[in-house]
Amino acid sequence: MELVTSAKNTRLKEIRKLAQKSYRDETGLCLVEGIQPCLRAIENGHDVELFIYSPEILRSEAALAMVSDLEKRNTSILRVSKDAFASLSLRDNPMGIALVAKMRPTALSQVELRRGSILTALFNVKSPGNLGTIVRTVDSIGGAGVVLVGQTADPYDPLCIKASVGTVFNVPIIKVASADDFLTWCHSRQVALITTSAQAKVDLAGAAFSYPCAVLMGSEGPGLPEDVLSAGRWSVRIPMYGQASSLNLAVATGIILYEVKKQQTCQ
Amino acid sequence: MELVTSAKNTRLKEIRKLAQKSYRDETGLCLVEGIQPCLRAIENGHDVELFIYSPEILRSEAALAMVSDLEKRNTSILRVSKDAFASLSLRDNPMGIALVAKMRPTALSQVELRRGSILTALFNVKSPGNLGTIVRTVDSIGGAGVVLVGQTADPYDPLCIKASVGTVFNVPIIKVASADDFLTWCHSRQVALITTSAQAKVDLAGAAFSYPCAVLMGSEGPGLPEDVLSAGRWSVRIPMYGQASSLNLAVATGIILYEVKKQQTCQ
Repeated sequence: MELVTSAKNTRLKEIRKLAQKSYRDETGLCLVEGIQPCLRAIENGHDVELFIYSPEILRSEAALAMVSDLEKRNTSILRVSKDAFASLSLRDNPMGIALVAKMRPTALSQVELRRGSILTALFNVKSPGNLGTIVRTVDSIGGAGVVLVGQTADPYDPLCIKASVGTVFNVPIIKVASADDFLTWCHSRQVALITTSAQAKVDLAGAAFSYPCAVLMGSEGPGLPEDVLSAGRWSVRIPMYGQASSLNLAVATGIILYEVKKQQTCQ
Repeated sequence: MELVTSAKNTRLKEIRKLAQKSYRDETGLCLVEGIQPCLRAIENGHDVELFIYSPEILRSEAALAMVSDLEKRNTSILRVSKDAFASLSLRDNPMGIALVAKMRPTALSQVELRRGSILTALFNVKSPGNLGTIVRTVDSIGGAGVVLVGQTADPYDPLCIKASVGTVFNVPIIKVASADDFLTWCHSRQVALITTSAQAKVDLAGAAFSYPCAVLMGSEGPGLPEDVLSAGRWSVRIPMYGQASSLNLAVATGIILYEVKKQQTCQ
């Protein structure tokens, strides 16, 4: 099998273009790098258009087993040199494994709600790294999905996929144009809305939540608009004892989701 | 006052070298960028060697008040153009404010322990972004300090200062060469050690902590070595319900610190 050694190779150029959202939207494809993210995309049944690996650097047995499995399934495979692989990698020390997969967005109507479901919604959250870290946390609590409300980062941004450790491929991710659309849906499906604000009167630990629920977080600076805050069944705050007045968004979301999950498992 | 417009200016070259740890160690200085980090360095009494701002872009009233206050105190001030400022900035949209401050490490013997103190210790944590985010969380719970055990990121790395929103200037940060040194100190000062591991038998919510305590976290991949885990008074885990087997380190630390602080405030 041919080994691509030049970063100027036409297919590699196409693959690198997937770092741009416009090209992902145009093609319906995304670039996935690293062992865990690739495994998660495959195990969760995403269509793999192309598998890319570098025999020079790939050492993981789990990853080599993945290569031989994909070969049997007649997946298109591109073998590249270490330097050629580095040209598409986000990492300082690439593992030598990547793939191009079809994106698979979820619609709000497809969200499976159960009695104990916990949804996480993000309003105008711009950082792909924070988004990926939050998706990873949502996976850890067995959350029902992540709803992206308004102008948010793209879950298929390579930085988001990396921070999510590939959980963007198993956690349902739903885009909703406006907070109004999301609030209307919550109301129609009897999903209790939990909002957060530094000004909220109720301490996170003092609220008694009901389920299914949705935890809605704003971005770090502006937070949530007043009309959205007032639409929540609960508005809670994390007590702060320091000089800084806020937490990192992914940390704050983690603390709240942990507490909401803990209450749910005790019911 | 002169306006520096060239990124090749000798002083700017020196300032940019502070991005390197070796040059920070050599000079005892660090570069601080952004309104909140600069305010926090000044308010917490760090010696300011040089203040840098760009009149073209600095708009914040709080920041302009800081400039006029520093002028009265005869602090050295460097006025630079927008482009010259961008040459030292980490940000896509720089605010136009930075300073060079003396670093001020804390020794373990200087840590002020009270009955309810909560320390956070990090073992071989390499990511400056994660470190800064954790320092910010430690500030939020009014923590007693952050102990860096072994080979960890530098708290004065510009990425760490940024992620900490400047809380590296008010949270005591202590370097300790080895886990043994830290465990010995905990024992001698009757600080109860809390370790975390995916294999721990006790659920975080099921432990009843005593104080003063220290929460010791390992890095994401390797975690904590066996001998360190077994030295803990408690070893706890965060329950996981998803496909990924771990959380982002800063998120996991946030969840644990929140729980440890909550118990402490209830005592």
